Amino acid sequence: MTNAPLIAGIELGGTKCICILATGPDDIRDEVRIPTTTPEETLSAIEAVLDRWSGFAALGIASFGPVSLDREAADYGFITATTKKGWSNTDVGRRLAAHAGVPTGFNSDVAGAALGEGRWGAAQGVADHAYVTVGTGIGVGLVLGGEPTNGLTHPELGHIRPVRLAGDAWAGACPFHGDCLEGLASGTAIRARTGQGAETLADDDPAWESVAHALAQLLHTLVLTGIPRRIVMGGGVMTGIPHLFPRVRTRLVASLGGYGTAPAIEPAETYVVPAALGNNAGPLGAVVLGTRALR
Amino acid sequence: MTNAPLIAGIELGGTKCICILATGPDDIRDEVRIPTTTPEETLSAIEAVLDRWSGFAALGIASFGPVSLDREAADYGFITATTKKGWSNTDVGRRLAAHAGVPTGFNSDVAGAALGEGRWGAAQGVADHAYVTVGTGIGVGLVLGGEPTNGLTHPELGHIRPVRLAGDAWAGACPFHGDCLEGLASGTAIRARTGQGAETLADDDPAWESVAHALAQLLHTLVLTGIPRRIVMGGGVMTGIPHLFPRVRTRLVASLGGYGTAPAIEPAETYVVPAALGNNAGPLGAVVLGTRALR
Repeated sequence: MTNAPLIAGIELGGTKCICILATGPDDIRDEVRIPTTTPEETLSAIEAVLDRWSGFAALGIASFGPVSLDREAADYGFITATTKKGWSNTDVGRRLAAHAGVPTGFNSDVAGAALGEGRWGAAQGVADHAYVTVGTGIGVGLVLGGEPTNGLTHPELGHIRPVRLAGDAWAGACPFHGDCLEGLASGTAIRARTGQGAETLADDDPAWESVAHALAQLLHTLVLTGIPRRIVMGGGVMTGIPHLFPRVRTRLVASLGGYGTAPAIEPAETYVVPAALGNNAGPLGAVVLGTRALR
Repeated sequence: MTNAPLIAGIELGGTKCICILATGPDDIRDEVRIPTTTPEETLSAIEAVLDRWSGFAALGIASFGPVSLDREAADYGFITATTKKGWSNTDVGRRLAAHAGVPTGFNSDVAGAALGEGRWGAAQGVADHAYVTVGTGIGVGLVLGGEPTNGLTHPELGHIRPVRLAGDAWAGACPFHGDCLEGLASGTAIRARTGQGAETLADDDPAWESVAHALAQLLHTLVLTGIPRRIVMGGGVMTGIPHLFPRVRTRLVASLGGYGTAPAIEPAETYVVPAALGNNAGPLGAVVLGTRALR
């Protein structure tokens, strides 16, 4: 750790931004939280933090999305068509890179968290893994051979359309897709369906069966990509609801039905695991993105 | 092409094996077909072909699966737990590599076909792409930055469980999953559902709506992996049924609902395209696998 470079890591979230100056989780030298308001106000406040810091070798930015990751595209480093009011088509990556004047890594917040969990968290030593966050929305990061799997763009597998639990015809809460995964199993969906937040919903509420079924379908799909050797799950809904992990694991194993690589994911307790970095996954992921920009 | 190395390419299929000696599609110097019977008989016949050939720099093998791709595993190069009688736990890759005595590439038949379409077919010049074959079964190959996306194993996305078409409750034909994608939309499923082969089923048979809906859900999922910049579709059902491509494209665009990167896949006619190499995708893919083994 002592030889690790000092990095400025920025997690740009939908409600707040976390800026850390660190070489890793055991050496965080400063941490500043900034509320996410308008783009100009928010980015100027981040720039002021960067101006105050010195000695960092690179900058890493893990941003809410969707973000443009195509280095050949005119909008590389931008937040593109987002549901967050006022932020569509906002240059984040190029602007902050130019301001900092150091090598800069840029990716989605979920890709960042995936890399953070791979470097210091629950997927350490696993070159091929996935990170799933279940909170206000549902996001997926995929890492293959240590690299985020960015081709056309970053994964958006929170919006797959899972087969429905028998007898469940609730229309779902996604403004784009209705009963896609995020429309069935996110914190927003749970509140829309039950009128309660996930943290207060009774453990035996039947809505949990639909949530667990939908999440298991995402994991079924992730296993069948052939990529992850481990799936890390985080976000407020997963970390706040202890009974959800066992339900999701049981339904995953049942859904795969012994097919193909199914034996490789058992015991499911070591294949589907809780995130280890908690709220620091995002900013530490940004540190990893910054470190990678030095290569 | 003149400087391309001469490669022995073997496509090991469930009913026949195709062995070609070639540098590429315009320079196929020999082609031998061998029926797939028992492992010993089949592999000995392939070895006899290799003995007859000379001057090849490498061997490529594209095999029906599931296959083991983990180079650290004791069963690397094996066909693992397959539904093909007598072939479970059969060493294909190590045996043929030892016999040939040249650098050898080994992967699934669908990964091979994906690489073949990327090198000489419908995905030329596209570094990130997917190949979907719809025939007796449904297979998917994913290529990211020119490399097959092998982590835990190869993709098995033919077995995702798509949301069902409203009003369609047919139980499906997959022995593992019932109404997974392959259980709803493969040639085997079409025959089980209608009593007819895909090639004789009337264009206005309502079963086609369910097939197109299920295939569009696979493409919806593939788009949301964030990987393919183009999706190539082949196999007997896709290439034999001209009305299927437009139906699948229309349902894909509707299913994405304008979300995220949806604009990047339009017009869908250039995003979802027919395979170009036909029956030669497999053996030519094996040639690519052999060429890669020389790196």
